[in-house]
Amino acid sequence: MRFSSAAGREEGHGAPLRRRPGQLVITGFIGAIAVGTMLLLLPISTAGQSATFMEALFTATSAVCVTGLIVTDTPVFWSGFGQAVILVLIQIGGLGVMTVASLLGVLVMRRLDLSSRLVAAASTRAVSLGDVRRLLVRVVVLALAVEAVVALVLTVRFAVAYDESFGQALWQGVFHAVSAYNNAGFALFSLSLIDFVADPWVCVPICVATIVGGLGLPVILEVLRERHRPRRWSVHTKITLLMTALLLVGGTGFFLLAEWDNPATLGTLDTGGRILASFTQSAQARTAGFNSVNTGEMHTETWLGTVILMFIGGGSGGTAGGIKVTTFAVLAVVIWSELRGDPDAAVFDRRISVATQRQALTLALLSVAIVVLPTLWITALSPFTVDQILFEVTSAFSTTGLSTGITAQLAWYHQIVLVALMFIGRLGPITLGTALALRAHRRLYRLPESAPIIG
Amino acid sequence: MRFSSAAGREEGHGAPLRRRPGQLVITGFIGAIAVGTMLLLLPISTAGQSATFMEALFTATSAVCVTGLIVTDTPVFWSGFGQAVILVLIQIGGLGVMTVASLLGVLVMRRLDLSSRLVAAASTRAVSLGDVRRLLVRVVVLALAVEAVVALVLTVRFAVAYDESFGQALWQGVFHAVSAYNNAGFALFSLSLIDFVADPWVCVPICVATIVGGLGLPVILEVLRERHRPRRWSVHTKITLLMTALLLVGGTGFFLLAEWDNPATLGTLDTGGRILASFTQSAQARTAGFNSVNTGEMHTETWLGTVILMFIGGGSGGTAGGIKVTTFAVLAVVIWSELRGDPDAAVFDRRISVATQRQALTLALLSVAIVVLPTLWITALSPFTVDQILFEVTSAFSTTGLSTGITAQLAWYHQIVLVALMFIGRLGPITLGTALALRAHRRLYRLPESAPIIG
Ligand SMILES: [K+]
Ligand SMILES: [K+]
Repeated sequence: MRFSSAAGREEGHGAPLRRRPGQLVITGFIGAIAVGTMLLLLPISTAGQSATFMEALFTATSAVCVTGLIVTDTPVFWSGFGQAVILVLIQIGGLGVMTVASLLGVLVMRRLDLSSRLVAAASTRAVSLGDVRRLLVRVVVLALAVEAVVALVLTVRFAVAYDESFGQALWQGVFHAVSAYNNAGFALFSLSLIDFVADPWVCVPICVATIVGGLGLPVILEVLRERHRPRRWSVHTKITLLMTALLLVGGTGFFLLAEWDNPATLGTLDTGGRILASFTQSAQARTAGFNSVNTGEMHTETWLGTVILMFIGGGSGGTAGGIKVTTFAVLAVVIWSELRGDPDAAVFDRRISVATQRQALTLALLSVAIVVLPTLWITALSPFTVDQILFEVTSAFSTTGLSTGITAQLAWYHQIVLVALMFIGRLGPITLGTALALRAHRRLYRLPESAPIIG
Repeated sequence: MRFSSAAGREEGHGAPLRRRPGQLVITGFIGAIAVGTMLLLLPISTAGQSATFMEALFTATSAVCVTGLIVTDTPVFWSGFGQAVILVLIQIGGLGVMTVASLLGVLVMRRLDLSSRLVAAASTRAVSLGDVRRLLVRVVVLALAVEAVVALVLTVRFAVAYDESFGQALWQGVFHAVSAYNNAGFALFSLSLIDFVADPWVCVPICVATIVGGLGLPVILEVLRERHRPRRWSVHTKITLLMTALLLVGGTGFFLLAEWDNPATLGTLDTGGRILASFTQSAQARTAGFNSVNTGEMHTETWLGTVILMFIGGGSGGTAGGIKVTTFAVLAVVIWSELRGDPDAAVFDRRISVATQRQALTLALLSVAIVVLPTLWITALSPFTVDQILFEVTSAFSTTGLSTGITAQLAWYHQIVLVALMFIGRLGPITLGTALALRAHRRLYRLPESAPIIG
């Protein structure tokens, strides 16, 4: 988090990245999705007949936005070439977003901080091209390192325990390692990880890659840099690590409790298997989207709990979706302070800036609206139940990719809604909003204050 | 809105109302519910066998909290005496909350404003007993006046068009006028207003009483006081009136669109009847809870739309529930400002105070949690669908009282949840929170600032 800028305040000159970083990202994503769609439409991309435009667009968006929702059965429908295209789209989407989101996160944050006029002095240094290049190198090296280790473990396991040929095991190892680290959740098994539900040699490496990738780049880089001095970690890093741990443990407990006796999910496993499966589900629900139990067979209340986990998501500035764990923590602290009548909201001995509070509250409410309204719309015009639709919509918006199984059966005009949700969720509603030139007129005077009665 | 106080800052001396206004209200409500429960347990309160404790508690809470959710069929189960008890509880709950909520709303608002240190100078005057007495008189006179007019119209209509005896028509006219003005939604017809779906002489007066009562006392008093000078109305009044109009029109349109062809609701009516029924439903959904069409037969998406209307609710400082229309408007303005990157959120040429913004955002998120968590809990342990349960929970929390028909069939441990939700919803989660001594320690120094990355 060394990057700072006066972005948005100095429009009209400077490098493109400084002028309109948000628009650059949007353009990049749209470009990647367009190219991906065209490649997936090629006859060599599919194993049988060519993909329809909707199938190609949906799959490309899902890959670039590292979501993992599918309208086709990845290992059956797509050829090796098609799968490779998906893999590259995942890597581009993941790395791209890791770089830019962390960069942009800092930029946007600085800009908002500026409005509070507290850190203006600290925010006048612009991002140099050297900074960006250094960041990019670090992101790529880190990704390749984690992916290589996980791919190695998976390859050995697939080859040794499942009697796969070395080439086959390597391809599957690499694919799932990349898919896991980038939190994409695309799998080369029709049943995702269900056949490996009790195999820790498959589930644990995938979960580790998922969790590390989901922390977000600012946290990963800071932890690596200051690994011997945890006391110097930023509040952002401390919140992210604490919340990740709490949500992993809480989620595991929730799935154990909710599904313990369900014969279609945990019921047939021994206690160890149940714990592993619940842990896997908990790790995957907050953004990656692999599943080692049958999501469609879970109880309705488990779906609702999963919706909450998906909605919260992972860490900022990475491949995780949702409103992010820091946002959730800030909300909890703000609500608690408000109830106590404390004018300051504080955590880890730091006051949370007013701009950050407002941003967190806005993001959460906007996200609620972005999930609720499409749910209502799809409910009105499809045969599925509200809980199924809420699950699918949240999964798309949070780029998790878990599914109750209805996505492939939705009408094209509902699948388009999911495509839009993946895109909005991936880039973030506030990033999108600020980028889309919703810039305010500067008022030359300040209006008098008013305080309408609330509640 | 002439009342101001240094409440909460001067604890330990002064009148009880000044010391702990929130606790006083809570005690009053619990007392009224307790007395009501005991009265309803008396054998003379029921037409047949005595009420169970749960039936009496649920009905008393529903009446005092002007909710209207029922576990028994009001006209059949309760005797005339029992119905009179319910009527008195409604009037006490409604008048009590009208007085105290508007008073408290101002108190709490002032206290929060204090934290922004902008209006400290204006907030040092305490509420005098004379102020309270004057307010009480005005509240009672206003209520009796509106109720008398509506009761008169209803009595004439019931007597003339439905061949009821004068005594019967008068009792029903008075009961429904009181129930409507206080937004209680209790009816002396087993089917609520379904038999009067196409009768504007019944539906319109009830809707007018509902809408006026739901504006909240600060608005009603200001509009009466400044009826010739609308330009002097406060921002609070302007927002409330505008949002009420928008939601009434928007809700009517929504119900028309969603239920036009549904033979179990609007489908059998002519166009005029459909418009009247949709208008009635729109007016009632935002807090009163009478229904002139069969709620249980509506489409799922209509339930979801109704949930949104119930959640928004009516005006502050009155008998309406929900997060309130001003809160909703402030949220919309804050989100819009955040997306535009505008440091100020302004409406009607006034900046919305930072404390008000934070309070609105907190209330909305807290309310989402208060609705979602019980929905999850009841879903886990009951045979009903999520949409039914979400509807019932929102109806209880927003003290609307509309029902898909499942409340009476819920287990006692779920009915208790609804009782708690009616109570929390009636007093408001923030009022409850601040009253329950969640007071912050005063810090002697200010912590350094931090801005974790959001989204
Ligand atoms: K995913
Ligand atoms: K009501």
